[in-house]
Amino acid sequence: MRIIVAHHNPASCERWRNALAHELPDAEVFIWNDAETRKADYAIAWAAPSQEFFARQPRLKAFFSTGAGVEKLLASSNLPVALPVIRLEDAGMGAQMATYCVGTALNWIRQRDEYAKQQQAKRWQPLPGEDMADWPVGIFGLGVLGRQVAEAFAALGFSVNGYSRSIHSFPGMRCFAESGGAGDFSAFLAATRILVILAPLTPQTRDRFDRSALAQLVPNSYVINVARGELLVDDALLALLDSGHLAGAALDVFRQEPLPPDHRFWTHPAIRITPHVSAITVIGPSAHQVAAKIRSLEQGAAVSGVVDRSRGY
Amino acid sequence: MRIIVAHHNPASCERWRNALAHELPDAEVFIWNDAETRKADYAIAWAAPSQEFFARQPRLKAFFSTGAGVEKLLASSNLPVALPVIRLEDAGMGAQMATYCVGTALNWIRQRDEYAKQQQAKRWQPLPGEDMADWPVGIFGLGVLGRQVAEAFAALGFSVNGYSRSIHSFPGMRCFAESGGAGDFSAFLAATRILVILAPLTPQTRDRFDRSALAQLVPNSYVINVARGELLVDDALLALLDSGHLAGAALDVFRQEPLPPDHRFWTHPAIRITPHVSAITVIGPSAHQVAAKIRSLEQGAAVSGVVDRSRGY
Repeated sequence: MRIIVAHHNPASCERWRNALAHELPDAEVFIWNDAETRKADYAIAWAAPSQEFFARQPRLKAFFSTGAGVEKLLASSNLPVALPVIRLEDAGMGAQMATYCVGTALNWIRQRDEYAKQQQAKRWQPLPGEDMADWPVGIFGLGVLGRQVAEAFAALGFSVNGYSRSIHSFPGMRCFAESGGAGDFSAFLAATRILVILAPLTPQTRDRFDRSALAQLVPNSYVINVARGELLVDDALLALLDSGHLAGAALDVFRQEPLPPDHRFWTHPAIRITPHVSAITVIGPSAHQVAAKIRSLEQGAAVSGVVDRSRGY
Repeated sequence: MRIIVAHHNPASCERWRNALAHELPDAEVFIWNDAETRKADYAIAWAAPSQEFFARQPRLKAFFSTGAGVEKLLASSNLPVALPVIRLEDAGMGAQMATYCVGTALNWIRQRDEYAKQQQAKRWQPLPGEDMADWPVGIFGLGVLGRQVAEAFAALGFSVNGYSRSIHSFPGMRCFAESGGAGDFSAFLAATRILVILAPLTPQTRDRFDRSALAQLVPNSYVINVARGELLVDDALLALLDSGHLAGAALDVFRQEPLPPDHRFWTHPAIRITPHVSAITVIGPSAHQVAAKIRSLEQGAAVSGVVDRSRGY
């Protein structure tokens, strides 16, 4: 069996190759380059490494994405229609998403930035405390990652709303769904003061958080985007921060990455920026997951995480 | 029945009086002043409001502390030997302690301050991620508050060590105890990289975190003190931060409060200061708890939270 690794980062390619060779000692694992003529059975990559990739790898049985989001791969014009695309499922990313989102929310609610300013001024001034009951959380997207974030907030005593494509039921969570119609989306927003955007980018989610949506959040809400920049309309966020309807935002993803130096997000006082680090692929458990799925596929068994192209994730 | 409120803050006195009058409509609830001649059955205060307080209130059946720590009250020379002193138990403080400690730890582990600096410089630079498995948490003090903090960390996937006076057993927590001898304390420290100090101030805990203790923590540890300043030796903390053995500290309590303007803690780059706000008494649930205990005492029943003066808490 042959496995081709085609990550865009050369160092990551090496680590993926070594990890997969360790997990599947009988496989021939090699790194993509333009001169490569060997035909692989499986590919591991984030997106197609070149226009000719799929033409030159006609024997692929499955394509494994090294990230949770696959919208760039699905947009590749040469992606064979019948090639199964398989996403990473958690593999260490859920715990990272949870610490990023919970840490960000607590940083805001416990007013750490304000206390940091007071420290600089050597000012001892207790601020009025915030009651967690006044900060219901809303998770937009209840996939493997979203559910872990929801559970982390719930464990700290937050009330949690969830929004997903089809109706779910999770203990302790109030669930809203796309299948419930526009009224359900409005009800989700109106019940949410910490919004966590954690859904895949699809035609249905693109530009979803526009001015109309953000204005329906509880006044003085906080927005956390850890999905894709395209789900949130930049100008709408800025307008509602400036109007005072929104209290602040923590953004880890952007329409253009790296975020261009002249973008207003960099300098807005109510926006905290991180460079797409909320959940980084951890190669060890990820390679373990991919190897297990390859073994299953080789035995003709079904695997989870196969992208439904009609949904886009 | 008469209840005297003697909080040091006049606004808090009013709120306590109103809340207790609401909870116990048959009681006569009044606020202490020097001219007060009525003799009360119960007192609510943080510490004795004056030298003469106990001499002028000889009929007290119990003294309720408005805070979790009672070391100042127990040090009052006029406190009658047989007067039961009753601490608040949780009453909304545990959840606050949990959000303070978890938020502080995640702020550090997820490198939020570093990313804030990068944002100021408009620098897009992902930093190497931290694995939670490399950050075992140690909670010094497993009272009502310590246990809630431990549970919050465990729910996020952290491994948690606990240290208490006598040996406990909690699911998912590795427990160490004073009764296990000095070896147990050393083992607790050596297994801990995020230290949460959350024990009462007693002769046994005073100056407990001196240079020898702090040096036994895992290298590059982070210290969170939400108990009392006297548990931590200021110079030892500074020396070990400066030597690089400790990575940083978040301090909410100090030997002198407000922290004096010339104290080195204010300006140390690795120290984050908050003005004793980690858990604020919430008067509503606190008054509810005190009222329930007064009703029990009036019926001759035992109540929890009575301070054991030989232990000091």
